[in-house]
Amino acid sequence: MSTSNALDGLTQALRKLPGVGAKSAARMAFHLLQHDKPGALQIARALEHAVQSIRHCALCNTLSEQELCVTCASHERDHSKLCVVETPADQAALERTLAYRGLYFVLMGKLSPLDGIGPNDIGLQKLFDRVVPRDEDGQPVPAASREVQEVILATNFTAEGEATAHVIGQALKSRGVQVTRLARGVPVGSELEYVDLGTIAHALTDRR
Amino acid sequence: MSTSNALDGLTQALRKLPGVGAKSAARMAFHLLQHDKPGALQIARALEHAVQSIRHCALCNTLSEQELCVTCASHERDHSKLCVVETPADQAALERTLAYRGLYFVLMGKLSPLDGIGPNDIGLQKLFDRVVPRDEDGQPVPAASREVQEVILATNFTAEGEATAHVIGQALKSRGVQVTRLARGVPVGSELEYVDLGTIAHALTDRR
Repeated sequence: MSTSNALDGLTQALRKLPGVGAKSAARMAFHLLQHDKPGALQIARALEHAVQSIRHCALCNTLSEQELCVTCASHERDHSKLCVVETPADQAALERTLAYRGLYFVLMGKLSPLDGIGPNDIGLQKLFDRVVPRDEDGQPVPAASREVQEVILATNFTAEGEATAHVIGQALKSRGVQVTRLARGVPVGSELEYVDLGTIAHALTDRR
Repeated sequence: MSTSNALDGLTQALRKLPGVGAKSAARMAFHLLQHDKPGALQIARALEHAVQSIRHCALCNTLSEQELCVTCASHERDHSKLCVVETPADQAALERTLAYRGLYFVLMGKLSPLDGIGPNDIGLQKLFDRVVPRDEDGQPVPAASREVQEVILATNFTAEGEATAHVIGQALKSRGVQVTRLARGVPVGSELEYVDLGTIAHALTDRR
């Protein structure tokens, strides 16, 4: 089709972007090479820098450049509250509301039995160990001595998100943890990332 | 907003892509870093390789890795026909029809007086020199001795594209060149890149 292997290669590579098909990829490639070569190099360097420097926060799993992310490392956050979300994008949506000052745990996924994704695949044990640590004898620390006093389930209000919240909620309640869920102010069937800030803030306040 | 400078930098950089806003850029960044780091590196390398290796064909202006693009360097193309298009994307659309075997001249733009883009900004002189070369005495070569016998105007059927075609057509006709225009089978107001192949092929056959 095209007269250049480098151009074909770039068009193919750009199709790796979510929501970008053959025509959009070609349009992007032509635009960058005709009108914005500095922009193309900026994207290339940002991609390489991000891939090299971004890893998962040791405590909450979110994307971070440090061993601990900014939120987990902050002394101004309320360490007694832990908000469980599916993805860093959902976490970012909650942060934008400015209505929550606790910590997060990012699942990096959700239970999805149809896709073969079970509790072990989304790090639920890591979450349980964090909320209910064990003492030197291997016994669960009593509720009053735990750092995390409340777990707020903020998985998406989709079928998989609800199932994930249900499984986590049941497991933590059986260990004597106070568990709340974002209020149903969030429209059922939608994804947190795309909900307006006011609705998310309302849902945080009305958590049950 | 985000907890990482590298992530913010990547999101900002991705907004350089045409048609990508803040939300899409964030979604792309999260997707690549969570699910497709190899894809991210592939895009980065393809961008760098393309920016470094792709330049403009010395003869037709299109994007090419060589001094001469594959089309201009081919001995199987009809060198007596020259098709004038606005962009490499338009050229690619014409090539996909398989209905044209001549050469191209890519303007890399169009006349747009409102944006201050005149004949000198889109390399019209280079086109005129190519179609009507001058002999040793600086006189235009007579029509019978010229390599290019027909110029096909395939600028877009928009106001600027029509104006560009008109200006080029008038200038070349006054120099004794046979000038044709893609037939009006192409819907008025649309852009070549997005027209179906059959319509483009028909318009090539019916050029006037």
